[in-house]
Amino acid sequence: MTAVTPPVDLSHFYSYTASNRKPSSVKEFYKYFLIPGIANFAGGLPHPSYFPYDTLEATVARPRRLQPTSDKDAIPDRVIVPKDSGIPDPRLRIDLTTALQYGTAEGYPALLSFLRQFTRDHLHPNVPYAGGPEILLSCGNTDGFSKAVDLFTNVWNPGRDWIQQREGVLCEEFAYMNAIQTVRPRGLNVISVAMDGQGMCASGKGGLADVLENWDFRRGRRPHLMYTVTIGQNPTGGTLSVERRKKIYALCQQYDVIIVEDDPYWNLQFPSAYEMEARHRGSSQEPGPGIRNYNEHGKSSGYAFLDSLVPSYLSIDTEGRVVRLDTFSKTVAPGSRLGWITAQPAVIERLTRITETTTQQPSGFVQSLIAEMIIGKQDADGTRVSQKEDGRGWHMDGWVRWLEGLRGGYERRMIAMCNVLEENKYLLSQQSENSKTTSDHVDDWEVVDRVQMFDFVWPKAGMFAWVEILLDSHPLRSQYSAERLSKALWVHLTKKPHLCLVGPGSLFATSEKSAAEAHRYIRIAFAPMDAEDVKPFTCRLVEGVRAFWQRKNLDGLEDEDAAMAMQGLKLKGGANFLGPGY
Amino acid sequence: MTAVTPPVDLSHFYSYTASNRKPSSVKEFYKYFLIPGIANFAGGLPHPSYFPYDTLEATVARPRRLQPTSDKDAIPDRVIVPKDSGIPDPRLRIDLTTALQYGTAEGYPALLSFLRQFTRDHLHPNVPYAGGPEILLSCGNTDGFSKAVDLFTNVWNPGRDWIQQREGVLCEEFAYMNAIQTVRPRGLNVISVAMDGQGMCASGKGGLADVLENWDFRRGRRPHLMYTVTIGQNPTGGTLSVERRKKIYALCQQYDVIIVEDDPYWNLQFPSAYEMEARHRGSSQEPGPGIRNYNEHGKSSGYAFLDSLVPSYLSIDTEGRVVRLDTFSKTVAPGSRLGWITAQPAVIERLTRITETTTQQPSGFVQSLIAEMIIGKQDADGTRVSQKEDGRGWHMDGWVRWLEGLRGGYERRMIAMCNVLEENKYLLSQQSENSKTTSDHVDDWEVVDRVQMFDFVWPKAGMFAWVEILLDSHPLRSQYSAERLSKALWVHLTKKPHLCLVGPGSLFATSEKSAAEAHRYIRIAFAPMDAEDVKPFTCRLVEGVRAFWQRKNLDGLEDEDAAMAMQGLKLKGGANFLGPGY
Repeated sequence: MTAVTPPVDLSHFYSYTASNRKPSSVKEFYKYFLIPGIANFAGGLPHPSYFPYDTLEATVARPRRLQPTSDKDAIPDRVIVPKDSGIPDPRLRIDLTTALQYGTAEGYPALLSFLRQFTRDHLHPNVPYAGGPEILLSCGNTDGFSKAVDLFTNVWNPGRDWIQQREGVLCEEFAYMNAIQTVRPRGLNVISVAMDGQGMCASGKGGLADVLENWDFRRGRRPHLMYTVTIGQNPTGGTLSVERRKKIYALCQQYDVIIVEDDPYWNLQFPSAYEMEARHRGSSQEPGPGIRNYNEHGKSSGYAFLDSLVPSYLSIDTEGRVVRLDTFSKTVAPGSRLGWITAQPAVIERLTRITETTTQQPSGFVQSLIAEMIIGKQDADGTRVSQKEDGRGWHMDGWVRWLEGLRGGYERRMIAMCNVLEENKYLLSQQSENSKTTSDHVDDWEVVDRVQMFDFVWPKAGMFAWVEILLDSHPLRSQYSAERLSKALWVHLTKKPHLCLVGPGSLFATSEKSAAEAHRYIRIAFAPMDAEDVKPFTCRLVEGVRAFWQRKNLDGLEDEDAAMAMQGLKLKGGANFLGPGY
Repeated sequence: MTAVTPPVDLSHFYSYTASNRKPSSVKEFYKYFLIPGIANFAGGLPHPSYFPYDTLEATVARPRRLQPTSDKDAIPDRVIVPKDSGIPDPRLRIDLTTALQYGTAEGYPALLSFLRQFTRDHLHPNVPYAGGPEILLSCGNTDGFSKAVDLFTNVWNPGRDWIQQREGVLCEEFAYMNAIQTVRPRGLNVISVAMDGQGMCASGKGGLADVLENWDFRRGRRPHLMYTVTIGQNPTGGTLSVERRKKIYALCQQYDVIIVEDDPYWNLQFPSAYEMEARHRGSSQEPGPGIRNYNEHGKSSGYAFLDSLVPSYLSIDTEGRVVRLDTFSKTVAPGSRLGWITAQPAVIERLTRITETTTQQPSGFVQSLIAEMIIGKQDADGTRVSQKEDGRGWHMDGWVRWLEGLRGGYERRMIAMCNVLEENKYLLSQQSENSKTTSDHVDDWEVVDRVQMFDFVWPKAGMFAWVEILLDSHPLRSQYSAERLSKALWVHLTKKPHLCLVGPGSLFATSEKSAAEAHRYIRIAFAPMDAEDVKPFTCRLVEGVRAFWQRKNLDGLEDEDAAMAMQGLKLKGGANFLGPGY
């Protein structure tokens, strides 16, 4: 065990703009606010009696609404954010007089305090550097990443800057395009790193070591910032093991790289995917990790569920070079536009300065309603009102239980989808065109000839499966390019009776190399449809693929709009098409 | 009347980053979403059944809660945002299934549609350019300004750029410092323009014509962007007349300057201030405009109240060079973090692209709750449910009435404060130290000697009075610098029995010149305290000033913390001290 040391100084990477932001020195002033009876003429705050909202209220789920456990909450809870709670301690106070007033950039104190405890004690109980990380509330991970980019990169303009000044950002070969579109307009190099089923590769051709060791300085500075989704990677669904994390982190130490870890799906990890994959594919598959306790050699999170999750890069972040982005988008709702950033204190301080002149703080409407739902009513002395007495508020136990229930919900969808995919990968020559898809194993059939149409890795977390279409096995492949077949398949699937809209792989390619391969992939989400539709819709999809393999020509599949749209989406990142969450 | 022409092309001012953002071309894709029965595997959206909120609700004011009219709403209204409204038209739909889902960067369709109508038909019915302006929702005006700065300026770094590349921003001599702190870290020139009681000066020494005509190119490019608060200017409370606007706009046309108009106080205009000032100060004062109909020669706003307000620069924006920022911070609550940007369509398109990779959209919690309060329930065909039938929703009439009521509330506070100030500007030598402040006119007193301690202009809009302390008239002025006296006064006022915290003028100075004069001013807000406290608190304040004028020395007023804090605040912009709204 190495000695506990403070985080390293990253200020050599602060952008010109971020370095210029002046530090806060307001503590000296606080005493004046605390003078009893002081008449405050100084603030430019509107009077709270002029806020038209007297209360905010909501009907909300109880934490056990979603399985694994079987009980349903037929009776939902009520939460009320009152106009004035009368509680003096700001860390305990949840009311409209404070939540709808101007606040501090760090976030609404009650929510900030809860999330700081959750982050430090439960989500990442073993951050190695001295003192541990701090947090700052954000308007979701796109906002958080935008601020991290503002902090750690300078715009590079070929019309006025030297190539030696050009900075770069590392990312996976296939990635969440909205993040790439955040950095690309700044003129930065976007450097793709090779990936496998887990996510980013540390070694091998095109892996991180290869990219950093053999960096061509004629392209600019060696990249110093990494953007990565490590759990339920978007679009591939991979999850990075601790072993892989250690290798990548060591390279980041060696080459002085900051890691921005964007993990909206961290609580949607599916241990069953390893088991299901092994069951379907026999012993040739690597065994999965099963249910592990990742904190067994450190401090426990206090919850078996959290202990079982593959931990963040923060858990091995001895130097404080990890900036982690968390969001309520997948755990509460995307429209929350609420999340938090976790990093070493000096980085959080700079991000707070940036927040002061951009978003100021997330909306008090969402901050107070989420605080009231999760934290609930508290006594003025900080002891929480017991469930029996009052019943409001999930508290830490309820919040963790909700996260576990959500995982269960998405895991069942994932299994429903992947079972159908697994059982219909092959076109069997004696199957007639009208035969129906079944979920029975195909092994019992008398097979004359079987052609594999697609392959996939069971997603170990997240919201989608990444499916490789084996276009070279298509009977028309000798007449058409794989890319042409791919476009035709996409249009074919949208037609009756298939009626399926899938995410083209080209939307996620971050390099020319991956763009050249991207037409071989589609991303299919099990999240957005109704739970009971996942299986029948996926059946419709595989029937559609099968019908495509049986086509004798591509007549009627030349859709100019689709080609234009796919091109347009690729350019744009598709934010409006698939929703910013794609 | 000149012919109606389209707005001019401003793309030569787009920043390198903003120019690089790719245009959206998603329209081609929409038809696929509309295919009946399509199974959408493409989007990465969470399923709405996993949002823990079943409803959002609120108890809200009725529009007539605040005077001018006398009826009080003892019974507040209830608004409910349901989980699923079942209304197909997105412009009419207000529910959690849509509001808490990923949305488009422009804003929640129902709210966007309402605000677009309000902006185009009621707030600015006479925008001269062809087609009129578009709007985009923001997370408040700080966010809106930050995005405008991102669009229209390039960072200038002396370590790598030429001085000729340095861009500049025009602002008033005294300004809202958070805006200045948005541009200063980018290395831009911040250029102060002289101001008077109205606001920015067009002509005269240091006025806009002087600054632009005599620009010294050795400092960089001539400034092409203006940041201005034209109504209830912060901190001076001035309001710019239409005549002045025309002169400034003509200069902006001549020198190709974009105007960013930040008007959080536009509905808090106080026609009575002109009258009160004239009454107190006799006929030597210029007469105020009285109640005018500013739209009498154009299209009416449809509301006498809105017609009576000094209109935006947009009303004379023939070329489309005005970007206006509106916010709910002062009309609903600062914690809303919700506002909108109004500008020519091409500018709104670029700002939308910026929004996609930063804030994405304001929180759905606030968007849906404000939409539900203001717009209320609507029939599926777009006709609103009548008040009688349902009673929910303010609709356009209620929204305008609420704005008028708010104006009344702040206007009464302003009058309460300024009457006390007006009647206590003078130290009367035969007044004993213990005499009480009265609201009677001092004219009746038998005066032996009177010394004026301070002066002010009645604020014509907004939330504060800007008071000039006539430090040169202080008996100790021969022993101490005015600056020293100013700091001593600030500390003196915080002590018993005065107990007043005032905003030091130095917090608002944007140039060395104005910083050198700033200690002569304080900004005192009538907004944040309880209504019934405004008069007694202001009495305490003027008593404090009087007591300061009667001091024989400055003993006990050397407060290092205060000096440090004031310096620190000046550096920082004071966002955390006075709240971002200071």
